[in-house]
Amino acid sequence: MEIPLGFLFSAVACEIRKKGRLDLGLIYCPERGISAGVFTKNSVKAAPVILGKKLIKNPWTRAIIVNSGVANACTGLEGLQRAQTLLIELAKLLNVKMEEILPASTGVIGEQLPLERILPKLSELKENLSAEQYISFAQAIMTTDTFPKIVFRKTADGINILGVAKGAGMIAPQMATMLGFVLTDAIIAKEDLSHLLREAVNESFNRITVDGDTSTNDTVYALASLKREIKNWEEFCEKFLEVLQELARLIVKDGEGASKIIKVVIKGAKTKEEARILAKAVAESPLVKTAFYGEDPNWGRILAALGKTALPFDPEEVELYLNGVPWIRNLTLQRDETIIKKEMAREEIELLIKLKRGRQAYWFWTCDLTEEYVKINASYRS
Amino acid sequence: MEIPLGFLFSAVACEIRKKGRLDLGLIYCPERGISAGVFTKNSVKAAPVILGKKLIKNPWTRAIIVNSGVANACTGLEGLQRAQTLLIELAKLLNVKMEEILPASTGVIGEQLPLERILPKLSELKENLSAEQYISFAQAIMTTDTFPKIVFRKTADGINILGVAKGAGMIAPQMATMLGFVLTDAIIAKEDLSHLLREAVNESFNRITVDGDTSTNDTVYALASLKREIKNWEEFCEKFLEVLQELARLIVKDGEGASKIIKVVIKGAKTKEEARILAKAVAESPLVKTAFYGEDPNWGRILAALGKTALPFDPEEVELYLNGVPWIRNLTLQRDETIIKKEMAREEIELLIKLKRGRQAYWFWTCDLTEEYVKINASYRS
Repeated sequence: MEIPLGFLFSAVACEIRKKGRLDLGLIYCPERGISAGVFTKNSVKAAPVILGKKLIKNPWTRAIIVNSGVANACTGLEGLQRAQTLLIELAKLLNVKMEEILPASTGVIGEQLPLERILPKLSELKENLSAEQYISFAQAIMTTDTFPKIVFRKTADGINILGVAKGAGMIAPQMATMLGFVLTDAIIAKEDLSHLLREAVNESFNRITVDGDTSTNDTVYALASLKREIKNWEEFCEKFLEVLQELARLIVKDGEGASKIIKVVIKGAKTKEEARILAKAVAESPLVKTAFYGEDPNWGRILAALGKTALPFDPEEVELYLNGVPWIRNLTLQRDETIIKKEMAREEIELLIKLKRGRQAYWFWTCDLTEEYVKINASYRS
Repeated sequence: MEIPLGFLFSAVACEIRKKGRLDLGLIYCPERGISAGVFTKNSVKAAPVILGKKLIKNPWTRAIIVNSGVANACTGLEGLQRAQTLLIELAKLLNVKMEEILPASTGVIGEQLPLERILPKLSELKENLSAEQYISFAQAIMTTDTFPKIVFRKTADGINILGVAKGAGMIAPQMATMLGFVLTDAIIAKEDLSHLLREAVNESFNRITVDGDTSTNDTVYALASLKREIKNWEEFCEKFLEVLQELARLIVKDGEGASKIIKVVIKGAKTKEEARILAKAVAESPLVKTAFYGEDPNWGRILAALGKTALPFDPEEVELYLNGVPWIRNLTLQRDETIIKKEMAREEIELLIKLKRGRQAYWFWTCDLTEEYVKINASYRS
C-alpha cells in the first residue's frame, strides 16, 4: 500500500449534480510526468475525450482533472469551450501549461459543466493536495459505484503502481464505460508507456461487460512520474497488467445491481477471434446472466448463447465446467443439479466452456443481471 | 374473424412440464395443403428444427404438431428419435404419411420429450379437432406468454389468413425466439408461399427484439389449404405481411416483463444496412430500454447507443422525435421535459431518429426492460 512517488491528490464537492458529495478530483505531479491514454471507440465522444486525445500527444503531463455528475458529452461547441476553460483556469492556479493537464468526465450526457460552481472551488482543490488524498480522489469520480476502486502493486525493484477506477453501468468492450488512472513512479519512455497501456487494456478493461453498452466518455490514463529505474521490465509489465486486471474485476464486481462475478472462459476454439466472439456472446446474454442470478442451472441457455453467434460447432462436443466441477458433457449432466446449484451460489464463479475445435482460448468477465440493475437505470437521473 | 377453410385445430394437456395446462397443439388439414418454413439461424438447433428443415421440402403437408414445456434442444440423437416417434404415431392416427407432418417445440432446453405422457394423449387430440379450437391451439403453445397471439385478415377476394404465434423472452432477429403459424385457404404454389414467407419474416419477426438472445427453436410455418383463388396477388401479399407484422408487434408487447412497446425508426441513413445497425443498437440497448421503463428522458443514452456502432456520424446533426413531438435538435431540448416525459409514459411509443447522412430508413420494435424481466428469467424453470 505504498503511493508512487511524485503524485499528489485532492478532491472537493462542487454540487455538480448532487449536494454534499465529492465530485471534482485532481491528480498532480509537482514535477513533470509523461502520460499515455486509451479512449472510447464510441463515435459519440465527450468533450474531455476529444480534448484528451489531442493533449495526450504532448510530451509532458502535470495533472489530471476529473469530474463526476456531468459527462460533458453531446454538449457541442459550448461543451468543448467549458472543458477548455476549466483547463485554463486550473493551469493558471497550478502554474503549469494548459496543454499539460488531461481532462476526464463521467455522469449524465447532454448537460453542460456548471463552471459557475466548479471554478470557485479550484483553489480549495489545490489547497487540499496531499499524497494521502488518493482515497477522496477515488470517491470523487464515482457515479453509481458502490465502493471506490483502488489497487496497489509494487515490484521487487521498489517501483510502485497505483490504479484508481470508476465503473458501474454501461460497461462493455471497446471499452468499459469507465474511467481508469494508472500511476507509477517508474522511469519510462512515453512510447513504451503508451504501448504497455494499450496491451494491458486489451487484457483487462476490454474483457469486461456489464450491460453491453459502451459509453461516450471511457478513458484510461497512465501517468509516470519518472522517479525510479525499471530493472526488470517483464516484472514491471506483469504488475502493471495486474493493476488493470484487478481494477477491471472490481468494476464487474460492482456492476450495477450485480450480486455475482462470472469469468467466462472459452477453450479449444479454432481461432482466438472465434474464442472471443463465443466468450462475449455468453457473457452478454441476458438469459445466461439472469440464470446465474437465479442460481438456475439452465445450461441450455449457455449453448443457445454460443449458438447465436452462428459459428458452426457441435453441441454434443461442448463441455461445461463450473468452478472446475464437470457440469455438462455429451449434452448430459455430469453431477447432481444440487451440486451445480451450490457452485452457482458463489460470489465469484468460473464458467469454463471447452470446445473441441482447436487450441485457442479467451476469457471475459461479466456479472449477473438483477432487478437492482433495472431499478438503478430506470431512475438514474432522478 | 373468419377461420380459413380447410383447417381443424386441437389441443390437450399432457403434463409435459406442468400440470393442468394445455401443452400439445395440432393443426390438421383434412385435405392436402402445401407449406413453407423459416427457421432459427442459431447454430444450436432443436430436434424439431432439424426435422422440420427436411420435412418442409416435401410437396404436401397435412398437419403441424407443436408442444410447449420442453424445447427438445440439446437432446442429441435421442431427442431426434423421440421427435420422430411422435410424428410416426400421429401419422398412424391421422392416417397420413409421417413426412406430411411438421414438428415444432418450445420450452426448456436440454430435456427429453416425455413421450410416455404425450403418446397416450394423441387420440384425445384427434377427437378434439374442430375449426373453433384455434384458441386452445394458441394457448397450448404459450410458455411465459401472458396472452395467446391470434391475428385474422381477409382479402376483398374472400381469402382468409389466420396467424397464431408465441413469443415472450429470447426474442431477437435472426429471428425472434418464437413459433409462428400462418394459415391461409389461398391456392398458391409452394415456391410462391416460400418466397412470400421469407420476405414477410424479414419485414416482421426479424425486426423485433426483447433481449437480444436468439433461440434454438425459432420456427415460422406457413400452410395453405388450396381452397380459394387469389385474384389480387398484391393485396394478398399485403394482408399476409400484415398478419406477420401484427403477430410480431404482439410478441414485443408481451415481451417478458415489458410495460411498453417502442418502435425505433431510423431515417436519413446512408444505406439500409447502416439504418438497420443503428436501429438495432438503440432497440437492444439495456440503458435505453430501462430509461423508457423509468420514463426518464435521458436522450444521451440514445446518442451513446447510436455511437457504440462506431459508425461515423455527427451527434449535432441527429434529430429525435417522440410520437412526432420534436425532442432533440442540435443537441438541444425542443420541448419542455414534462412534455417528453408524458410521451414516454404511453404504452406504444415511436422514437424517430433522423440523421442527415442519406435517404435510407429502417425500423425495429423493442420493449422496455423491467424488474419483471429479471424476475421471470431468474426462475424460469422453477
